Amino acid sequence: MAPLERADAEALDAADPIAHFRDRFVLGDGDRIYVDGNSLGRLPRETADRLAARVEEWGSRLVTAWPDWIDLPLEVGDVLAPVVGARPGEVAVADSTTVNLYKLAFAALDVREGAIVARAGDFPTDRYVLQGLAAQRGRELRLVDDVRPALEPPVALVCLSHVDYRTGALEDLPGVTAAAHEAGALALWDLSHSAGAVPVELETAGADLAVGCTYKYLNAGPGAPAFLYVRSELQPQLRSPIWGWFAQREQFAMGPEYDPVDGIGRFLAGTPPVLDLAAVAVGAGLLAEAGIGRLREKSVALTSLVVDLHDAWLAPLGFELGTPRQPDRRGAHISIRHPDAWRICRALIERADVVPDFRRPDSIRYGLPPVYTRFVDAWDAVDRLRRLVAEGVHLQVEPGAARVT
Amino acid sequence: MAPLERADAEALDAADPIAHFRDRFVLGDGDRIYVDGNSLGRLPRETADRLAARVEEWGSRLVTAWPDWIDLPLEVGDVLAPVVGARPGEVAVADSTTVNLYKLAFAALDVREGAIVARAGDFPTDRYVLQGLAAQRGRELRLVDDVRPALEPPVALVCLSHVDYRTGALEDLPGVTAAAHEAGALALWDLSHSAGAVPVELETAGADLAVGCTYKYLNAGPGAPAFLYVRSELQPQLRSPIWGWFAQREQFAMGPEYDPVDGIGRFLAGTPPVLDLAAVAVGAGLLAEAGIGRLREKSVALTSLVVDLHDAWLAPLGFELGTPRQPDRRGAHISIRHPDAWRICRALIERADVVPDFRRPDSIRYGLPPVYTRFVDAWDAVDRLRRLVAEGVHLQVEPGAARVT
Repeated sequence: MAPLERADAEALDAADPIAHFRDRFVLGDGDRIYVDGNSLGRLPRETADRLAARVEEWGSRLVTAWPDWIDLPLEVGDVLAPVVGARPGEVAVADSTTVNLYKLAFAALDVREGAIVARAGDFPTDRYVLQGLAAQRGRELRLVDDVRPALEPPVALVCLSHVDYRTGALEDLPGVTAAAHEAGALALWDLSHSAGAVPVELETAGADLAVGCTYKYLNAGPGAPAFLYVRSELQPQLRSPIWGWFAQREQFAMGPEYDPVDGIGRFLAGTPPVLDLAAVAVGAGLLAEAGIGRLREKSVALTSLVVDLHDAWLAPLGFELGTPRQPDRRGAHISIRHPDAWRICRALIERADVVPDFRRPDSIRYGLPPVYTRFVDAWDAVDRLRRLVAEGVHLQVEPGAARVT
Repeated sequence: MAPLERADAEALDAADPIAHFRDRFVLGDGDRIYVDGNSLGRLPRETADRLAARVEEWGSRLVTAWPDWIDLPLEVGDVLAPVVGARPGEVAVADSTTVNLYKLAFAALDVREGAIVARAGDFPTDRYVLQGLAAQRGRELRLVDDVRPALEPPVALVCLSHVDYRTGALEDLPGVTAAAHEAGALALWDLSHSAGAVPVELETAGADLAVGCTYKYLNAGPGAPAFLYVRSELQPQLRSPIWGWFAQREQFAMGPEYDPVDGIGRFLAGTPPVLDLAAVAVGAGLLAEAGIGRLREKSVALTSLVVDLHDAWLAPLGFELGTPRQPDRRGAHISIRHPDAWRICRALIERADVVPDFRRPDSIRYGLPPVYTRFVDAWDAVDRLRRLVAEGVHLQVEPGAARVT
């Protein structure tokens, strides 16, 4: 049952074994409660210094620093690997999630015949990339609500988000991966809303391919480079469609024929973003240090608190929970539905100093990254929401179209 | 004739109308002479502060800053546009040069039938990307030394570097563009070694497509995002192969069908690198402020000085000029060939405090970005080179394989 008194939330914070990680982040919010770390994570304190040091290194060492930079995409990938349950040499940090998804989905279609299966309600960039590839490669795209019945062979690729960006529902990664394999397909996971939020276990699940962004739960900053994962055993069979020089064997021989390296480096393309990689290293390192097991334990407690408070306070006000009730079926954000969600969301930001985000048509997302979110933050964020709606403050906001990232 | 005395070079600096731009960069080299700005440009003084401010903005404003960030790829593209002779709305800053080249070359092949023509000695990532596309799309790839005779129709795409990365030779962009059009092809230019170094005049030349990197003459930092250019009139006909959400009309409606915006934004893919874009804005803004006309005038004088000093001092020592002698046929770097180039290059860095770079098999490149390179730097860099070789200092370096970026 929920700790309905704020003192109960305070007690949970006092007992939280990873509470001290909050101090590793820039806060300075005053009274603001930030529950949108599922969209853009907070700035780790160390990041500003590390970025400044890398900028200084550029200024002073110039091109002579390249030997120290050139392997960063794989080195930072190895920092991130334990956070997503991958082995060393299976993760690279490069490009955007969109470009990485394109590269890996394209590569999968090279080695498997048949349709692409994805979810109709999945994140737009994933759907659009797959629509484009289906058109270019002449493949059927099965955009469905329920994936398993759509796996009738021949299926080349199953591409899904591990955690649904709207509802927070956590997909059964091992189960769907196994079902994809049974249908002869490769499974490609978008971990944008799960990396750093839930245990991913790519290795033990036998996952084939994955991509994900680093600016949400990994706190690497707006538009920071994304990551990609290719299972070791698959790496020799697959090839990026974008034949870039950073994948080339003996890169500086600049030879006539493209001949990609062995290993995850073969999925790189152009020159890596050296400054940004400093921020990814800090963000991923912090999560690895906190440990995904402890993070998940706290995350379940945080989302359970919000679910309980929803039931006690919000349901009577016309809200509906958009997120699965079973803790093991959800990630680290909670979706709360209301017909007036957009106005409520604006009122929360403008009148109640709570920053959530809105997703059409009717969802308010409360993201609760366990590494820096306190139980009192979750409690206060729901408390302010119920007061605001009970008092009708949101009705003072002009209805309008939303544009919240 | 060359000013063979250092005092002559000093006089040229004293008369240089853009000499003061050097003070806008972090120097701190002590006695070091940096002639590798064609590989990695210097750090503008303003950049560290601008990056720190953006990091602070991330930390304090978090997701609420996105409305100020979301148009940066096009806004910074418009800062860069005058530097490459493009019109507003024709340049976007995004992804890497490699990924941009892939996107634009792919798009060109969608609307033109026939072969791809490129130069056999062009920069590796360009050749590799084209090899990959030729294989994927079933097109003939004509990798040639001399482009014009290879334009026999049907040709879909001519893809060339504007300035050759090894020799510094400047291609006839208007002439080859016209020849490509005559053959029915689109022309795609890699401006990595010309943007910020020579006038590009994309608009007046009728150029179709271009890409380029920002970390060389544009001084945006190691691995900074690249740019792409698509001529306004072509934008409606072309479509990126990577269907990403940052190209989507009404992006946050997250609708079911991919429907790219009109304009250059349709060539974007994923979430833009917000921090890096601050550095590109500073770098491109500095070059625009100096003015490409004045930069070119100084650049021609700098490279002419090095050519003259080569003839006077280096040719007798067994060097050969690798760069065209006519100033209007070259960019802003000079290639000096010598059978022992690799050892000489190492000796320059380790024993003479000169930082050039080496390109296999036998070239030393002296990059002379006019915005911060003094005439005395050019003079000293050649003077140290001739002394070093005359004294045989390079013979003390172990022969070995090169790995200089």
